[in-house]
Amino acid sequence: MSKHFQLFTPPGETPRRGVITTPHGQIMTPAFGPDATRGVIKHLSPEEITHLSGTLTQGETLSAEHLREQNELQFLLTNTFHLRSYPGDEYIRQMGGIHQFMQWNRPVLTDSGGFQVFSLIHNSANLKGSVDNDGAHFTNPRDGAPLILTPENAIDIQWNLGSDIMVVLDDCRHYQDEAELVASVERTIAWAERCKQRFEQHLAKRGLGWESTVRPLLFCVVQGGIDKTLRKHCAEALIQIGFDGYGFGGWAITEKEFFPDEVMQFVAKLLPADAPRYAMGVGTPDDMLRCMQYGYDLFDCVLPTRNARHGVCYSSDGVVRITNAKYKHDTSVLDKIITSRAAHYPRYYLHHLFKIKDSLGGRLLSIHNLAYYNALMKQPFG
Amino acid sequence: MSKHFQLFTPPGETPRRGVITTPHGQIMTPAFGPDATRGVIKHLSPEEITHLSGTLTQGETLSAEHLREQNELQFLLTNTFHLRSYPGDEYIRQMGGIHQFMQWNRPVLTDSGGFQVFSLIHNSANLKGSVDNDGAHFTNPRDGAPLILTPENAIDIQWNLGSDIMVVLDDCRHYQDEAELVASVERTIAWAERCKQRFEQHLAKRGLGWESTVRPLLFCVVQGGIDKTLRKHCAEALIQIGFDGYGFGGWAITEKEFFPDEVMQFVAKLLPADAPRYAMGVGTPDDMLRCMQYGYDLFDCVLPTRNARHGVCYSSDGVVRITNAKYKHDTSVLDKIITSRAAHYPRYYLHHLFKIKDSLGGRLLSIHNLAYYNALMKQPFG
Repeated sequence: MSKHFQLFTPPGETPRRGVITTPHGQIMTPAFGPDATRGVIKHLSPEEITHLSGTLTQGETLSAEHLREQNELQFLLTNTFHLRSYPGDEYIRQMGGIHQFMQWNRPVLTDSGGFQVFSLIHNSANLKGSVDNDGAHFTNPRDGAPLILTPENAIDIQWNLGSDIMVVLDDCRHYQDEAELVASVERTIAWAERCKQRFEQHLAKRGLGWESTVRPLLFCVVQGGIDKTLRKHCAEALIQIGFDGYGFGGWAITEKEFFPDEVMQFVAKLLPADAPRYAMGVGTPDDMLRCMQYGYDLFDCVLPTRNARHGVCYSSDGVVRITNAKYKHDTSVLDKIITSRAAHYPRYYLHHLFKIKDSLGGRLLSIHNLAYYNALMKQPFG
Repeated sequence: MSKHFQLFTPPGETPRRGVITTPHGQIMTPAFGPDATRGVIKHLSPEEITHLSGTLTQGETLSAEHLREQNELQFLLTNTFHLRSYPGDEYIRQMGGIHQFMQWNRPVLTDSGGFQVFSLIHNSANLKGSVDNDGAHFTNPRDGAPLILTPENAIDIQWNLGSDIMVVLDDCRHYQDEAELVASVERTIAWAERCKQRFEQHLAKRGLGWESTVRPLLFCVVQGGIDKTLRKHCAEALIQIGFDGYGFGGWAITEKEFFPDEVMQFVAKLLPADAPRYAMGVGTPDDMLRCMQYGYDLFDCVLPTRNARHGVCYSSDGVVRITNAKYKHDTSVLDKIITSRAAHYPRYYLHHLFKIKDSLGGRLLSIHNLAYYNALMKQPFG
């Protein structure tokens, strides 16, 4: 039984409830974390992301239960690749780490850059890099200099950032590339092992061991496309190495054509009950509700904030496309049921803000969509 | 003695202190009002503009004295021309007026569109309209349709918006156009008279008279370029007609070459002591401090918010150009003395927000610059 995850639900039963313990506090699962790619959730202040509802007292020490009850954010994501690119992980370490840097004192999950291996290399129209067994070779979009991610430096970077939940570097491929999947799975397993070794070196340097209860967590990523044999092989090899949590990788929100329900169910059943399961990049409200039924515990996605910036709001009475002409005269508030700093705004004013292209519109909808996503995490439990 | 303005300072003494009474509360002068051109101060929420300091309790009824003491905004400006253009003044009236629309319950001053006569017609490289004795003929930048401002409809629009302090339509010219100044001054006087007539018709329709203590206020604008004879003629004619307040017009913040100190002093001395004096479009902190010495009471300017969006912050230890490389490692807070929702942010994080072009940076500096401008209004009084 992991010292970092406690499962409240009987093993085998879904949806699951549990609690993850990190250096910056607990996360009651299921839980959703938004993307603060470069150390900010676009347009939102630390005050807003710390108190989405606007009803909490600032500075109050809040339990995970309380945060969950109030539809507050329990954790967020920052991005290894983009922070490496700018302003630099070593710089953030000097500034006191990502929590101090962006003034957020709850858990931070850092992705590994594995998704950028997919989006900037494998899935890019203009080949912007290459992958070999050593690592992934990018061009820094900021200054054109080489930017290399290896299993080892991906872990070093995440330690520099001061992450609470680190993710191993993986070789994330597109489903269609079946021929390359075998190699990508073997590479993902080999890289995961190298990441864990490097992670343990960091622990040792700090006088900690894997059994420490105060260390950051290390998650791995199961790859294998829609090939169940490969997924099973990958999952079993990763379980053999041993991690704090298991991600389902290789699916991207940009994949509009299908959602890998069957493979996700299949993989979830292979994973240890006593470790959190992370549905990476998932998703829409419906996707998340289904994944909870499959036994997944953690979610992250750009959708609630990106959609907000495009005027799409999740409200308790359905999706509101606020730029729609009918909202110009709608004097009702954004949401009568789900509380947030934005819920009480009249829809006509939100409509106006989008029509005049003021960032306040996207900001208010971002706040509300995040509160909605958090509320959704409680839904299966009544 | 106006029932809408009480002067605390002995007549003739400067800087002056006083209080203006409007339908939405009092304004302790000197006072600065920022531009919420289209019903929003760019990037800022109603909560933020109502409580710049973040230390007030929401919903609290706040006296003008309290607002001034806390460096809070006492009034703001919205723009007749731009709101007429979009979303329309009649629409805003239907939505309950500008206060309800943008959720701001303190005084609103509406400009008349006179400045757009200058900026979009007289001073435009591509002539975008024309002016005759009837009014100003524009092309709506939104849809290309004709947009006409007359003295009468400029007042109608401001009543539709539900303004607390209305301004007459004036024919605002560039200093260099000396030849046209005489005609522009005569037109400004004639339009002011027509505006007052229309304003009184609106009062009568509501069963109110000029002597009402609960009506909105009507300000006029003194024009005349740097020609003192013309300025005197204009001021005397406007005083003869009689207004609640007197604006000094014709100077634009875009005029980098000079500031009309001498003419402003000259005009201030001509104006009645018992009416507020409004230095339109002024200005930089130094400009405002000098204008207070000349006896001006009200100020508005795009500078604190526009500069904020370009990374220029007014702090109690000087101007901070936050994009400057030296702030990347500056762990000190933005401002140790002047309180605002942004004052406690470390400078390195504000620097970062500008470097990654997130609107949160401009938003936080806007909040602080407005708090600074409000603090400046108290400076001459220790």
